[in-house]
This record gives sequence, C-alpha cells and structure tokens, in this order.
Amino acid sequence: MHNEKENKDMKIITGGVTAAKGFEAASTEAGIKYKNRSDMALVFSQVPCIVAGTFTGNIVKAACVLWDKEVVEHSAFGQAVVVNSGIANACTGKQGYNYCNQTAEAAAKYLNIPEESVLVASTGVIGMQLPIDKIVEGIEKLSAGKESTLEAGTRAAEAIMTTDTVSKQVAVEIEIDGKTVTIGGMCKGSGMIHPNMCTMLGFITTDLSISKELLQEALREDVKDTFNMVSIDGDTSTNDTLLILANGLAGNSTITEKNEDYRKFVEALNYIDTTLAKKMAGDGEGATALFETKVINAESKEQAKILAKSVICSSLTKAAIFGHDANWGRILCAMGYSGAQFDPEKVELFFESKSGRIQIYKDGVATDYSEEEATRILSDPEVTVLVDMKSGDQQAAAWGCDLSYDYVKINADYRS
Amino acid sequence: MHNEKENKDMKIITGGVTAAKGFEAASTEAGIKYKNRSDMALVFSQVPCIVAGTFTGNIVKAACVLWDKEVVEHSAFGQAVVVNSGIANACTGKQGYNYCNQTAEAAAKYLNIPEESVLVASTGVIGMQLPIDKIVEGIEKLSAGKESTLEAGTRAAEAIMTTDTVSKQVAVEIEIDGKTVTIGGMCKGSGMIHPNMCTMLGFITTDLSISKELLQEALREDVKDTFNMVSIDGDTSTNDTLLILANGLAGNSTITEKNEDYRKFVEALNYIDTTLAKKMAGDGEGATALFETKVINAESKEQAKILAKSVICSSLTKAAIFGHDANWGRILCAMGYSGAQFDPEKVELFFESKSGRIQIYKDGVATDYSEEEATRILSDPEVTVLVDMKSGDQQAAAWGCDLSYDYVKINADYRS
Repeated sequence: MHNEKENKDMKIITGGVTAAKGFEAASTEAGIKYKNRSDMALVFSQVPCIVAGTFTGNIVKAACVLWDKEVVEHSAFGQAVVVNSGIANACTGKQGYNYCNQTAEAAAKYLNIPEESVLVASTGVIGMQLPIDKIVEGIEKLSAGKESTLEAGTRAAEAIMTTDTVSKQVAVEIEIDGKTVTIGGMCKGSGMIHPNMCTMLGFITTDLSISKELLQEALREDVKDTFNMVSIDGDTSTNDTLLILANGLAGNSTITEKNEDYRKFVEALNYIDTTLAKKMAGDGEGATALFETKVINAESKEQAKILAKSVICSSLTKAAIFGHDANWGRILCAMGYSGAQFDPEKVELFFESKSGRIQIYKDGVATDYSEEEATRILSDPEVTVLVDMKSGDQQAAAWGCDLSYDYVKINADYRS
Repeated sequence: MHNEKENKDMKIITGGVTAAKGFEAASTEAGIKYKNRSDMALVFSQVPCIVAGTFTGNIVKAACVLWDKEVVEHSAFGQAVVVNSGIANACTGKQGYNYCNQTAEAAAKYLNIPEESVLVASTGVIGMQLPIDKIVEGIEKLSAGKESTLEAGTRAAEAIMTTDTVSKQVAVEIEIDGKTVTIGGMCKGSGMIHPNMCTMLGFITTDLSISKELLQEALREDVKDTFNMVSIDGDTSTNDTLLILANGLAGNSTITEKNEDYRKFVEALNYIDTTLAKKMAGDGEGATALFETKVINAESKEQAKILAKSVICSSLTKAAIFGHDANWGRILCAMGYSGAQFDPEKVELFFESKSGRIQIYKDGVATDYSEEEATRILSDPEVTVLVDMKSGDQQAAAWGCDLSYDYVKINADYRS
C-alpha cells in the first residue's frame, strides 16, 4: 500500500488542480439545477497538454463520456475541461451529444483554443437535457474569471460536487530529472459509486513532460488498485470519468520509457489516486465512516482484490459498521460468496482503527474477544477489516463506507 | 410467467407443509435466542420420503447445510426436518457439525426413525454455537406435539421466522394419474437474501410419487427461475436451503420419465416456488413494497435474467422505489453495468402496478410522462418495472424490495 507512508521522494503540498505550473481554474453559478451555489467549473492549461483518460464500463454511457473518449483517442492535445454538476447529460440521445459539441464550441471561442482540445464532464440527474444557454453563458464567465491560484482550484472542486459533503483535492511534488514536478487532482463522488474501469469525475493535472502512451498506461494501471477498489453503493455510474492533463511545463526531459523517473511518477500518481479514492469513499452518501478492507497474505493479487471488494460491498456488513456492531459473520459470508476460492478455517479476521486492533476469528470459530473493545474500535470514523488469508504473500485494499439512514434519505428522493 | 394466471389444472388451496397427505408439523418455544416466541419447528412424514435439495453457493457453508447435503446425496429416504431460528450454526467449526449430529440423534430417538433420514436447518446469527441441550429438549416436545392439521403447518411457518414480519406458506392441488396430488410449502427469509443455487430456508412437501432423480432435477431447474431471481440485499447467505420431501401417499403411479404428469408437477412446483419467492421479496427487511422487474422480448433468457436481476439489486433504484420517485435513469444505469450486451436506444421502459401503467423511456430519451401519475403508480405495495428489449422473444422476472430506513435500522444492530 503506497498510501500508508509518505514516500521520502514525495512531498505533499497544499492545493489541487491549479498546483502544477501553468494550470488555471474557475467556477461559477450557472443556475443549471441548484440555486445559490456554484455548479460549473473550468480547468485550463496555458499550453496544450497530453491527455489520458479512463471511463465508465457501463454500456449506458453519458454523452460527455462519448465526447471525451473521442478527444482522448483522437486529439493530439487537450487544453480545457468544462464540468457541470446538477445534470448528468446521460440517456439524452443525439441532443445530449450535440450539447457536448456546443459546449466545446463555446469554450473554444472564449478560450481561443481548438474545439477538439476541449473535454467536458457532467454529473447529476440522468435523463434531463442540459440547459445549453446557461452552459454557454457559464463558459463565458469561467473563461473571463480563470486564475492560477490555489483558491481557484479549491472553488472548482466545490463546484463539481453533487451530494458530496466535502470537496476533495490533493497535490504532491516530486523531483524528476532535477526539476520539481507537481501533480494535483480533484474529484467528486458520493453516490452511484462502484467504478468499473475508473470512477466518478476525477481530474488530475501535472506539469510533467511524458509521452501520451506512458501517461495513459500509468493511469490505466493505477485506477485498477485505487478508484476501481472503491464502492459506495454497487451502482456503476454512466458518467465515470478520470482525466489527467500533463502540460510539460516542469521542464524535465520527456519520459518516454519505463525508467526510474517513470517509477517515481507512478508512485506519486498512486498516492494522488489513493488519496482521492479514500476521500470519496469516506464521503459516500450518508456515510459516517470510511470502511476499509485489507486482505493480506493471499494466494494472488486477484484473489485479494475480489475478497476485499466483496466485503466493502456487502450491505449487511456496511449496516453493521454503521451500528458499530462486530457482526463478523457477515464479513466471512461476503468473502464466501465473492467467487474467490479459499479455506474458511484458515482465515483470520481483525478489526482495526485508531482506537486499537482486535482479533475476532481464527481456526474456523470466533476468538474470545471483548464485544466492548470491538465496539470501541468500530466507533472510529475510519474502520479497517484486516483479513489474513495465511496462504501467500499478495495483498489488496478496498474502500467503502457504512450504510446509514441518510443514504436512504438522500436517495429516496434525490431529484427533488 | 407461470405465476400470472392460475393454471386450469391447478387448484390453489389453504395450508402449507401439512397440506399433503401424511405430513405433520409442530412448533415450540425452545428458548434458543428469542424470548416468548416459538423458535423450533418440525416437519415430519408418516412414511419415508424421497428427498431433493438445493443449497447455498457460498463457500462458507453452515454446518446444517453440510449435514443436509450428506442426507440428500447419500440417504435413500428422509422423514423429518428439524429447524431452529435465532442461531445459524454457521462458522461454528467441528462443534457445529457435531451439534447437527446430536440433533439428528435426538430426532431419530423421539420419532423412531433412522438418524440418516433426519434433515436439519438453522437460521439466525452467524458464529454462535447452538445451545444443544435446549435443542434436544425442543425435539422431545416437537415429537410429542406433532399434528397433521393445517394450523400446525402455519405455526411451523411462524417458528422459523427471524426478521420476517409475516409467515410464508402456500399449497396447491393437481390431478396426476387420476389421483389428487397436493404440494405445499413454507419458507422464511428477509435479510441476507441473494440466493445463489437456492435460497433462505424453504421446505416443500408433497404426496406425489416420483423418482429421486426427477424430483431433484425438477427442483434444481425451477429454483433458477424462482428463488434464484430474488434479492433483498445482495448478500448470499451461508445457510440457504430448499428441501422437498415427496412421500408418495397420493397413490399415483411413480413418475419416472418426463411425461405429461412430470410437466404438470413442474408447473405446480413453479407456482409454489414463485409464490414463496415473491412472498419473501415483499417481506424483505424494512421493505414497504415488493419490487418486481420483468424483462420481455430479450435476445436470450440469460440476457433477460441478468438484466432483471441487476435492476432489482440496484441500491439506488431500490431507494427511489421507497421514495416513489420515478428515477428511471437508475434503472437504465443498472442495466448498463449488468454485464449483458444491448442497445440502450432500442429499449423501452414502463412502470406498472395495480394503479396503472406508464411508459417512461423510448428511443433513447424520456417520454413526456406525468411525474404525478408515475408517483401514483409507484405508491402501490407491489411495483413492476417492465423492460421491453425489442430484440427477441425471451423473458424473465426478478423480485426484490425497496431500500428503506428500516433495512438499515434492522441491520445496524441485528444481534442485540
């Protein structure tokens, strides 16, 4: 788990998408659906960027996902991302795709960049059409108001929120080729979170110079262990999008092979992705706790991942975490139906949090643990189930949240 | 859907496991975990029965599941089923299996039948050991109190409940070979319901005469379209057990091939299984509505089943049903991540209940439907999402329930 310790070569800094050189951001109240809050954001690079992206595995893909796939696959460069919250622009047919086109046209005009370098992303209610006039007006304001300050990045992270209760950003510095390279990111995501391929909306910016192929590979590989190991409710969104823009302004000699510099970047990217993924899990709709499952000493990484994800997805386990109830049978049950093969008699289970660690299951039966101590450990805002498979040396982690009354409340009438 | 109309050859009658000739039942307060309610049940046949069963696909199998698999596979006959609620006897190691053995020993002694003809089933908290002395005392009382009355069957259906709010039983009569054949059943299940192979605890009795091979095949095939199409919370239990006992007392000449008589039996069994499955779904933990999804005109039955099940499993869709909110985007989203291939533009969606029917999605976009009418339709205690795939002639149905505050309440502290 790279995320557990700060790497000595990596420095965590303040900020998000505007932390790296040459990136600007803006936000505005476009009045798309919400009242009295910002609901559009712009991420802009002063110079063209290499772009990579991963998108939802859902067959039903939002119009903006189809648009961005085109840009990532066919445009040489990207330079701006226009994001709106409130309406997802999914299940909106040809009209919805036309609106992506009109959004890009407007951004190209006001930002004076090619239309094919504009990426778009939407999040909110499925099935409603975007109010395109408001979007275009919003773009004009965003273009006029963009700034390279950290505050502008923070406000952008706030503008992309839907049911999120906190904005989510992170940034780090690493040294590559004698130059300081900065990577920063923001994301939103609170419900309909069960990434398949990538997740939610996430935007990462860096001033690193790197080839498009390696940027795409680094992102694609890393999401498998980070965003794809998050689940809040088992529902894979139609809009999942993770984009990374690299503008090269750090001045390092371009990374074109998997050398030590690439390894350093991948490690920093893993930190960024893991941090954003955990922030998202901890802010799951209605969540009162970040619920992590770590599987260690597994036969294979695949086995560890399947088991970890099955546990954090189990509604019953999540409800037990909400109730601070050490109902470990549900954990073993969720492992049992995961599809992974293992010997239940060999497994050991522990609960872990800042308040301590307790072994609850060994040799096929419950240990003689104290329910009181278990409840104390489970009452922390970050709770870990540690599963020791005792059958190999592979590991994986997955992140979710508890299942609370508020999850139901939020989702019983999300649209009103 | 066989369940939609009563077959003209089939008569729905009052009763459950004691409806068929020669079957008796009993219930008692053994004090296993609950206070002041019955928590043990016995189903007994006056003569030895052919037995078939299907069991949980969970790797972590309760001791009673391991015991019953032995009996179904290796005993020539079964004659009694001893059931307790409160404790699941799962994750209880060798001791748990020994308790199954002691349960069977006690039942054999008090009922004067071979030990290997005794089936056992448990449901409740995972990880606790059974209080075997109370179980043995309970068996003595059950053996003394067994009756062939319909009321005894009803009381047995009540004794096997855990978080269930209503008991579940059904019975039908068919004519085979000039004889009246009766089939009756009961089941329990409210949480940890996402059957894989079969589900929950279900017990069916019949006085039909049939070969063991055909009885097993009929049951195995039917659960795929009935119990295995139910999900309440996505958690496949460690204890799922469905047993059918056939004692032959109807006097028909034994069914040994897939003739017209077999077909009649299979149709009646499908009605029994579907009815019990829907009763279970409608009584899901915290449920305020039975939530059915029917997929019609699909390319293949497999596709229809995958899509139907994905929709009824979606937490977001279930929360929307609870809120009577016509948030159809979530339905399409759940279909999209199901793994089944299809063209979202071709699909049509409808909401349906006793209050009416309304089309909500066509040609890739929302229809101009009335939100008020949709809400009225969704306010019924039985709600159906009808998905017309417009691409073939296959169909399937799946059953679940809405996701309510009470689901969370029940499961946040189930053990206390």
